[in-house]
Amino acid sequence: MSTLSPTSTHRKTGLVVSAHSADFVWRAGGAIALHASQGYRMMVVCLSFGERGESAKLWRKGGQTIESVKAARRDEALEAAAILGAEIQFFDLGDYPLRVSDEALMRLVDVYRDLLPSFVLSHSAEDPYNADHPLAMSVTREARIIAQAEGYKPGQQILGAPPVYAFEPHQTEQCNWSPNTFLDITEVWDRKRGAIEAMAGQEHLWHYYTRVALQRGVQAKRNIGITAARNIEYAEAYMQLTPNVVESLA
Amino acid sequence: MSTLSPTSTHRKTGLVVSAHSADFVWRAGGAIALHASQGYRMMVVCLSFGERGESAKLWRKGGQTIESVKAARRDEALEAAAILGAEIQFFDLGDYPLRVSDEALMRLVDVYRDLLPSFVLSHSAEDPYNADHPLAMSVTREARIIAQAEGYKPGQQILGAPPVYAFEPHQTEQCNWSPNTFLDITEVWDRKRGAIEAMAGQEHLWHYYTRVALQRGVQAKRNIGITAARNIEYAEAYMQLTPNVVESLA
Amino acid sequence: MSTLSPTSTHRKTGLVVSAHSADFVWRAGGAIALHASQGYRMMVVCLSFGERGESAKLWRKGGQTIESVKAARRDEALEAAAILGAEIQFFDLGDYPLRVSDEALMRLVDVYRDLLPSFVLSHSAEDPYNADHPLAMSVTREARIIAQAEGYKPGQQILGAPPVYAFEPHQTEQCNWSPNTFLDITEVWDRKRGAIEAMAGQEHLWHYYTRVALQRGVQAKRNIGITAARNIEYAEAYMQLTPNVVESLA
Amino acid sequence: MSTLSPTSTHRKTGLVVSAHSADFVWRAGGAIALHASQGYRMMVVCLSFGERGESAKLWRKGGQTIESVKAARRDEALEAAAILGAEIQFFDLGDYPLRVSDEALMRLVDVYRDLLPSFVLSHSAEDPYNADHPLAMSVTREARIIAQAEGYKPGQQILGAPPVYAFEPHQTEQCNWSPNTFLDITEVWDRKRGAIEAMAGQEHLWHYYTRVALQRGVQAKRNIGITAARNIEYAEAYMQLTPNVVESLA
Amino acid sequence: MSTLSPTSTHRKTGLVVSAHSADFVWRAGGAIALHASQGYRMMVVCLSFGERGESAKLWRKGGQTIESVKAARRDEALEAAAILGAEIQFFDLGDYPLRVSDEALMRLVDVYRDLLPSFVLSHSAEDPYNADHPLAMSVTREARIIAQAEGYKPGQQILGAPPVYAFEPHQTEQCNWSPNTFLDITEVWDRKRGAIEAMAGQEHLWHYYTRVALQRGVQAKRNIGITAARNIEYAEAYMQLTPNVVESLA
Amino acid sequence: MSTLSPTSTHRKTGLVVSAHSADFVWRAGGAIALHASQGYRMMVVCLSFGERGESAKLWRKGGQTIESVKAARRDEALEAAAILGAEIQFFDLGDYPLRVSDEALMRLVDVYRDLLPSFVLSHSAEDPYNADHPLAMSVTREARIIAQAEGYKPGQQILGAPPVYAFEPHQTEQCNWSPNTFLDITEVWDRKRGAIEAMAGQEHLWHYYTRVALQRGVQAKRNIGITAARNIEYAEAYMQLTPNVVESLA
Repeated sequence: MSTLSPTSTHRKTGLVVSAHSADFVWRAGGAIALHASQGYRMMVVCLSFGERGESAKLWRKGGQTIESVKAARRDEALEAAAILGAEIQFFDLGDYPLRVSDEALMRLVDVYRDLLPSFVLSHSAEDPYNADHPLAMSVTREARIIAQAEGYKPGQQILGAPPVYAFEPHQTEQCNWSPNTFLDITEVWDRKRGAIEAMAGQEHLWHYYTRVALQRGVQAKRNIGITAARNIEYAEAYMQLTPNVVESLA
Repeated sequence: MSTLSPTSTHRKTGLVVSAHSADFVWRAGGAIALHASQGYRMMVVCLSFGERGESAKLWRKGGQTIESVKAARRDEALEAAAILGAEIQFFDLGDYPLRVSDEALMRLVDVYRDLLPSFVLSHSAEDPYNADHPLAMSVTREARIIAQAEGYKPGQQILGAPPVYAFEPHQTEQCNWSPNTFLDITEVWDRKRGAIEAMAGQEHLWHYYTRVALQRGVQAKRNIGITAARNIEYAEAYMQLTPNVVESLA
Repeated sequence: MSTLSPTSTHRKTGLVVSAHSADFVWRAGGAIALHASQGYRMMVVCLSFGERGESAKLWRKGGQTIESVKAARRDEALEAAAILGAEIQFFDLGDYPLRVSDEALMRLVDVYRDLLPSFVLSHSAEDPYNADHPLAMSVTREARIIAQAEGYKPGQQILGAPPVYAFEPHQTEQCNWSPNTFLDITEVWDRKRGAIEAMAGQEHLWHYYTRVALQRGVQAKRNIGITAARNIEYAEAYMQLTPNVVESLA
Repeated sequence: MSTLSPTSTHRKTGLVVSAHSADFVWRAGGAIALHASQGYRMMVVCLSFGERGESAKLWRKGGQTIESVKAARRDEALEAAAILGAEIQFFDLGDYPLRVSDEALMRLVDVYRDLLPSFVLSHSAEDPYNADHPLAMSVTREARIIAQAEGYKPGQQILGAPPVYAFEPHQTEQCNWSPNTFLDITEVWDRKRGAIEAMAGQEHLWHYYTRVALQRGVQAKRNIGITAARNIEYAEAYMQLTPNVVESLA
Repeated sequence: MSTLSPTSTHRKTGLVVSAHSADFVWRAGGAIALHASQGYRMMVVCLSFGERGESAKLWRKGGQTIESVKAARRDEALEAAAILGAEIQFFDLGDYPLRVSDEALMRLVDVYRDLLPSFVLSHSAEDPYNADHPLAMSVTREARIIAQAEGYKPGQQILGAPPVYAFEPHQTEQCNWSPNTFLDITEVWDRKRGAIEAMAGQEHLWHYYTRVALQRGVQAKRNIGITAARNIEYAEAYMQLTPNVVESLA
Repeated sequence: MSTLSPTSTHRKTGLVVSAHSADFVWRAGGAIALHASQGYRMMVVCLSFGERGESAKLWRKGGQTIESVKAARRDEALEAAAILGAEIQFFDLGDYPLRVSDEALMRLVDVYRDLLPSFVLSHSAEDPYNADHPLAMSVTREARIIAQAEGYKPGQQILGAPPVYAFEPHQTEQCNWSPNTFLDITEVWDRKRGAIEAMAGQEHLWHYYTRVALQRGVQAKRNIGITAARNIEYAEAYMQLTPNVVESLA
């Protein structure tokens, strides 16, 4: 299917909103690397560093403070973003629990207005294992709506209606998350794996998300059909939350 | 989004399975005309003529038999298909209630094997107002699965995994039907309107489905955004039931 | 809310489709007695006698045949219908499993055409404990659709769109059944209890469904509000599956 | 169906909670005019003026401030309310994003206590295109619950359990909104159209919502049946969120 | 089914989070008494006293203040907890509306860390009749997640993944609450009934929840099957929200 | 949680209903081997051999007939069952499409009556990729209901209410299948892997389902908590469709 997009002379952009500093790597690293390789300016917003809830290995080795954990996670995230070809912003809003003030929300609105992204990625709308994840998606969607309003900073170019995708959570079925979109990431897999390995404190997840990529690759092939010439080995799965507007159904 | 499709040297095809002889006009006439204009071979399968349940005006004027009503509906459907640029097959299985034998199912499997369509359209999976409609979709999906089996007529080219779309039912919300795909049909609207007017016995629906096309046009524009250069006046809405496999999320 | 109904000079009627011979008593006995007392002609169709699956006590006492059990259940059902003020028809299609041929379906269509009921009651659309119950509702809805078709027995008065209600299953939540309608049956409770007691073989259910009626009574009061002058002690709950057309929202 | 209502010697009232100043016109203008014509005191609460998110035309013509836009929207809303026969209160809480403090919530509780409405209308519980709309419904429901509490302003007459309806959102299916109630507004259509035309800045919506009224009219007729004497040309559709308590199922 | 649990030398514990001071009695009194009798330390957290919304009888008799109502409800709750064999903590956060600050959330996190409960009970995730109930469950789940985080009070023993159950709301189907777990409380019914009777101001609920226990008892028996030797007369129903990890499927 | 089961002096049994001859291996091989090792008599019913739809490799190598493919699949299934420690019955009903006559249904009822199983495993209730799978579960549930009926072969011991589980489909989220039960199969993994390798024609699935077992192992551990002493490496996931009756919530 070929979709209708606004015409634009700008460099195309994509926005990724990550609750914690590593989420964008496991869940959207392939999409980031792929679109970067296609010439997109990819921007990652990390709402927090995941310093309390997603840094278990650092805490277990002892001698840490919140600030030292945040610094370590920031370094890893910067390295991963560099490998994937993305820019990154840290909102540093705290985690477990993440709390997003209206001021932070408006900061995200301004990111939208600055980028005018062609697509937006964030977390699943539900996640019983992690209250920060659905909040990140909720804020991502609310900021998108405000960025579409003529009355917010009148005179600025307003946002159109870029598609919104929920990337894959850790336990998909518990989150009522179902993929309607498979993205072939075979050609950028090495870069995604490199970014994954930058997450030094979470080695157990390296293997988990490599298996996820292989499973999604098998499923993607099955959804094209065996007559396809193209080979897919690794894929990422997404749940698109917004309707498509298309010129063809094929 | 650009999707991955099997490479093919054949002329591309599309399959539309219609429970009654007029359904393909109201619900998918724009898609048929648009893809025909793009060079697709479009094939409509009418499972019945809608002779009992969707020919009220004919029955009310009196002097009809089942055979005369079927003949009248066949003529209208042929005329509409010609206007839209589609071929048509009549399975003549009866309506209210439609019943599909395994023999008829296998006939549909053979249509799949013959066409190897790039996409498939049929009714919503639920419709409390019409038991024939969901049955048509159920059969459409079951036949697609069998056409994918290596063990059915071994040696024949098997079917890949063409996307399946449910076209718009009369009362969408009662059918738990929600559109995730809008197709711009502005350029072929005249042809769809012509086909609609071929349905001489259902004038009240001409206006209803013209308004549907205008409403879907407004919604399609809203889902691209006001920055879009392209104008959309008329659209058709579809609920895609199968996942997409894509090379880009934009 | 006052609803819009077709004008009619006929005596008003209501149709109840019961999978087994006792279902109409536990689940809709209050509605039957209430509408009968309001002058409605109430018609119960029993698709089976419940001879295999809902006659445990008879089988356990021994010395029974299928025919003797059917005769016993018929007698109880006739007695209950008489107490409630309803007519009753037995389709005798067998149970566990119930199977409905197209011939039996058409017999039900003819009941619709004969009665032109103002409302229709049958089982919940899902029931993991009883496959006969959802089938009864499915047939009830399909027959209603066919009875609306001009091309079925042309010249006969066709059916309008009477509301369809699912009455209360044994374990409501397991059936995804949720009541949107509470019917006050306080004034006919004695008759319902009398009909319940006609079900000699199922005493354990007498108490169960008396408690159901009390619980639904409490809930009905809560949904009017404590300012209501009217007292409700016993109620039946229904899940209306069809939309209302009304002249007022109050 | 005739419903059970608390007896009352007061003039009957209805409450409409609108997130922005025009929502009540498009979505509930017919219900407001109809009940006003039936003698109800109809009260509209506008939580905001829609000054940022729903005043695009004003902002595009330039030279506006938030205050001038609010004043213009207030004037339009007052004119529309006058045409429909309703009173109106402006809470002026801001939009995009709307935020409702506990103080504003309690102000709405007091509106309930003052009016003791027979029914309540607000937005759909979900709307991915507009975060203010679901918030309005959420607040409407929470305030209703508090107004039912004996311990809030003890001694005041507490609220009963008036039915709550979600009026029609712009893209119904995307909001998981499904109508279970159709209200015939044919006789007050001229007034609704007049109120619609008072929304000078949103002409594109005049046509959209006129078509909505016509489509809902067709659907309403279909849900009564063709035997109905009554003609319905225009209707509004509602999703009732609360159960009915009734004296008849017909 | 036998489940896998962390090994522990501590006395086993269970946590119950109750929005108002009586909820734990009606909805989980049997589970509390049963586990207390099995040697568990049972801890009830009452987020509020239900002083505004669930103390109607006290307010109606007049001469009350918020403080006197709170004191009365506290006394009743203490008495009920004593009968059931539970400890109780009052967070006194107010009701109608309940509001939970991050400080209160963290107080609940510390309760988790202190108890390390083997299971957790709170309200249904939805309740259109009571906004405080779903908030209590939401807080219960968020606090559980934070208590699992290594970075919260590093060095403390973190929480594992105790199962979370939603106990039964007043109108189950309206809350989309469906029981997947029945607990036999026959042997502790006398204690539950005693605790119920400690709720002096809510006599109408004594009968209601006694009938609930009887209905759930009947259903529990039906889900074991009639070949069961064991007799169940009274039961409580729960909706487990978390997956089980088991060593056997029987 | 410890569940309540009927007391029995018989050897315990488990029933697995597999649409095609290999399904029981990929999806339930661990459960079969584990319960066999616990002393259960495990019975597999294969409704078909998967000769048309799940034997692609055999067909592609050429020179096959339906009978030769069925024989090959039978041999593999026998070998796998032997490795897992299960008995196996072949109903040979055909596949793509599978059709189950009432006679075959009754044959399955008799298997239930003969085994009186403690638990039952079959396919997911939905599967858009495979129409045979949901049919297998539907038949499994209907046969269970009939086996509970006193009036079917009166005098025989009737079935109680054994729990029913849906094992894992190929693409879980597309099937609306969500696991609520994880079974630790680490100790029998070698046997499951051995049975998997008996499926000579489907090597690509060996790797796929080994990764599934590893992913489910990780998830199972996460749902016990990191304080668990027990190590889980491989797991199977199940969706239990029936409620539990328990003596403890821990």
